[in-house]
Amino acid sequence: MRFFSFCIIRFRVLLLAFGCLVLGSGAAQAQEFKKTDAEAIREIYDRALVKGAAYENLRRLCKEAPARLSGSANAEKAVHLTAQMLREAGADTVWLQPVMVPAWERGETEAILKIPGNQRPLEAVALGGSVGTNGQWLEAEVIELPGIEALKLIPADKVAGKIVFLNEPMEPRNVNTFASYGACGGNRVFGADEAGKKGAVAVLVRSLTLSHDNHPHTGVMIYRSELKIPGLAISTVESARLSELLAASGSVRVGLRLGCRDLGMKPSYNVIGELRGRQFPNEIVVAGGHLDSWDTGEGAHDDGAGCIHSIEALRILAQMPVRPKRSFRCVLFMNEENGGMGAEAYAEYADKEQAKGIRHVAAIESDRGGFTPRGFSYDAQGMGGTAAKQFLDRFSEALTPYQLQLITTEGSGADVGKLQSTGAALFGFLPDSQRYFDVHHAETDRFENVHKRELELGAAAVTSLSYLLCQYGINGSVPAKK
Amino acid sequence: MRFFSFCIIRFRVLLLAFGCLVLGSGAAQAQEFKKTDAEAIREIYDRALVKGAAYENLRRLCKEAPARLSGSANAEKAVHLTAQMLREAGADTVWLQPVMVPAWERGETEAILKIPGNQRPLEAVALGGSVGTNGQWLEAEVIELPGIEALKLIPADKVAGKIVFLNEPMEPRNVNTFASYGACGGNRVFGADEAGKKGAVAVLVRSLTLSHDNHPHTGVMIYRSELKIPGLAISTVESARLSELLAASGSVRVGLRLGCRDLGMKPSYNVIGELRGRQFPNEIVVAGGHLDSWDTGEGAHDDGAGCIHSIEALRILAQMPVRPKRSFRCVLFMNEENGGMGAEAYAEYADKEQAKGIRHVAAIESDRGGFTPRGFSYDAQGMGGTAAKQFLDRFSEALTPYQLQLITTEGSGADVGKLQSTGAALFGFLPDSQRYFDVHHAETDRFENVHKRELELGAAAVTSLSYLLCQYGINGSVPAKK
Repeated sequence: MRFFSFCIIRFRVLLLAFGCLVLGSGAAQAQEFKKTDAEAIREIYDRALVKGAAYENLRRLCKEAPARLSGSANAEKAVHLTAQMLREAGADTVWLQPVMVPAWERGETEAILKIPGNQRPLEAVALGGSVGTNGQWLEAEVIELPGIEALKLIPADKVAGKIVFLNEPMEPRNVNTFASYGACGGNRVFGADEAGKKGAVAVLVRSLTLSHDNHPHTGVMIYRSELKIPGLAISTVESARLSELLAASGSVRVGLRLGCRDLGMKPSYNVIGELRGRQFPNEIVVAGGHLDSWDTGEGAHDDGAGCIHSIEALRILAQMPVRPKRSFRCVLFMNEENGGMGAEAYAEYADKEQAKGIRHVAAIESDRGGFTPRGFSYDAQGMGGTAAKQFLDRFSEALTPYQLQLITTEGSGADVGKLQSTGAALFGFLPDSQRYFDVHHAETDRFENVHKRELELGAAAVTSLSYLLCQYGINGSVPAKK
Repeated sequence: MRFFSFCIIRFRVLLLAFGCLVLGSGAAQAQEFKKTDAEAIREIYDRALVKGAAYENLRRLCKEAPARLSGSANAEKAVHLTAQMLREAGADTVWLQPVMVPAWERGETEAILKIPGNQRPLEAVALGGSVGTNGQWLEAEVIELPGIEALKLIPADKVAGKIVFLNEPMEPRNVNTFASYGACGGNRVFGADEAGKKGAVAVLVRSLTLSHDNHPHTGVMIYRSELKIPGLAISTVESARLSELLAASGSVRVGLRLGCRDLGMKPSYNVIGELRGRQFPNEIVVAGGHLDSWDTGEGAHDDGAGCIHSIEALRILAQMPVRPKRSFRCVLFMNEENGGMGAEAYAEYADKEQAKGIRHVAAIESDRGGFTPRGFSYDAQGMGGTAAKQFLDRFSEALTPYQLQLITTEGSGADVGKLQSTGAALFGFLPDSQRYFDVHHAETDRFENVHKRELELGAAAVTSLSYLLCQYGINGSVPAKK
């Protein structure tokens, strides 16, 4: 596209970008959303886009503490690094909430593909939580199944002694890629458990991604029985090849040696930074992401971005000319990926605060990556469900000029979702979902694959909703007991 | 983000993605937007996402005919290649519309930065349409100005004999990056013209991009007077360095040798593919992009993506179980980047058809890249402006389940915009704008920087709006004279 057409549209666009906001037009919202709020949100965006700290903070987190697996030394580093970031951001208080987390060590994953007269390495990673092979090689014939539902139906004697290969592709027809992820995540989470119960010796799961690439994508798996067999992910390209080989030769064997070890429970922390509210300090608005990550990449989109969005929200709110009315907390949850112990610990803490008159009015989770903002989801089922929806409707005029039109009922997230008992309205930040599973839980989830402006716009979106929640509260802004 | 939370939201999301569409809910729209239309749009998306040809077609265009500068051998190749694609896509008729286009050859750009006691190459490209230096080296002192407005105000003796460096950064505060592009495009288009009138010997323009990188971004420049001096783009990184050097040393000289040549007018073509309408064949709906591109990259996003969106629209509409009611045309315009001769030729042709009772009812331009779809703009000023807005409102129920919520008044585009005299409703396809100027007119505008699903979703969005326009026409669906 060249320049000419923009001369013509330039002023119309500027009107669109600024005018709608400043002038206001919806009669119903006019009472709610004031000119000063419009100016405040404009200022939030300016601070995020012009002098933002998000990109440099994410670089530090990804480079100084990549692969932040719960209980690891890097997770420990990340705790202290982000606590420091929150102090630098201007938090009134920064504290570490102790939490015991399950620790698991990947060790080395070795996999060899064997067909008659030939063998080659198979690109694979252990799934998170998998048992290892105690230094031994395990070798067996591979049987391909179209997914865990087929595995549940197949007679045990068909899979006993074999390596089960679950080759279910993610559905490409959904615009929302998370819907496709949800629909076939069971293969990864429970595939080894189901196969183990039928006497299989290991499970290979097709990576949960829509891209055709050669990166295996790890993620949590869970054993429900004591028959624990190893679980591994192989890339989508490798899955296609393996399927072709099986169709062509009928007999493919795979050899595996996994160094995985369960290290038991270890002490760790949630990291919390607070900015005290000017008028209702005992009403709390939370924005948060999870600090732990898988160890295959740097945890840049999952969920470095969400942590950085939330730290940036505190930084920007701290710099506003007038301190927001309610208290804002940035909560960085530990152990989202393989246990959720951080979320449980924080929810317990919030319940105890409730008894002391400190009330969580709303919480926003950012755990869908650092891509271009599209809007927000809300938890329609929880106690604050109706209030959450009403709040987004009431302030749509504030958010649409910043291209935040997408509103869905997809809930909040695995961490913030635990706050339901507080009655808080629960939100999830929705960035564009097309590229998320390209990098999700893979070695490509690196800082270099995060786009600076997209990250900054995400920070601005999370900050803007946090700001409005701090100013207006929710459920008619009833102040908590003091 | 891990799996657990998705089990819970899975059904809610599926309801959102499919249910809204199939069930329908808006009372006003229910008359307009039928269940069969919802099914048709679902089918369009399925065809684009599951068995789409867009990605492979774009690969062919970018690899077999990259750098499609008007009048070049590669532009000629692209004409025949896309005509072939349209035949393969199932067009009833494919034809080439002759059009004379200005041909310009870049030749070699050599630039050397000289400070006392040191010199190094300066990463630069000639702007499109620049004069060359006739094999001679040109060397002069550099003077930095904050943009063309400052250049207009400065006395001539301050810039006479010098190389003017216009260092205006694009405004980062706009969410819509096109607004920022429009606001400082004048530096590139008219910088050399303004400086030449004041006796400067050349102009260096800071690249029009929001990214901090070392790729110079070219683009069209125009001489309004006969005082023609060379114009070049330098990267944003190089601009920052040059500015620092000027501040530090005060005296920086640059040597330039440009091999640019004006090759006069050459014959070329618009490429047109038509699918005849079942019921109103003399009512035309156009979707199009421009076939020419700058020669620095492969013209992947600008505007290979728009061409491929439009070819894919024809391919998918041709495969629908029932042929759409009105005729659909894919129009690939030649020479958008440096002349617009293709758009003028097609608009003349449309006016002549009008006299014969063949009426253009609507046209969609895709010239903002192959990124995730956000929505559509429309031309509010043209004869079809009101009808365009009403149409988008009327079918918002059809488009929002596919995350096409963004509706703006940014017009259509430089090619389709020329169809105003036909009275057609004019639309522009709006993909996400954050990454567009990262690659725009630079060597990074390559196939590898286009995301498969994002391209396919763009094709589905353009096809869906085309389909609805073909089915319902516009302005009350009055059929044209037969």
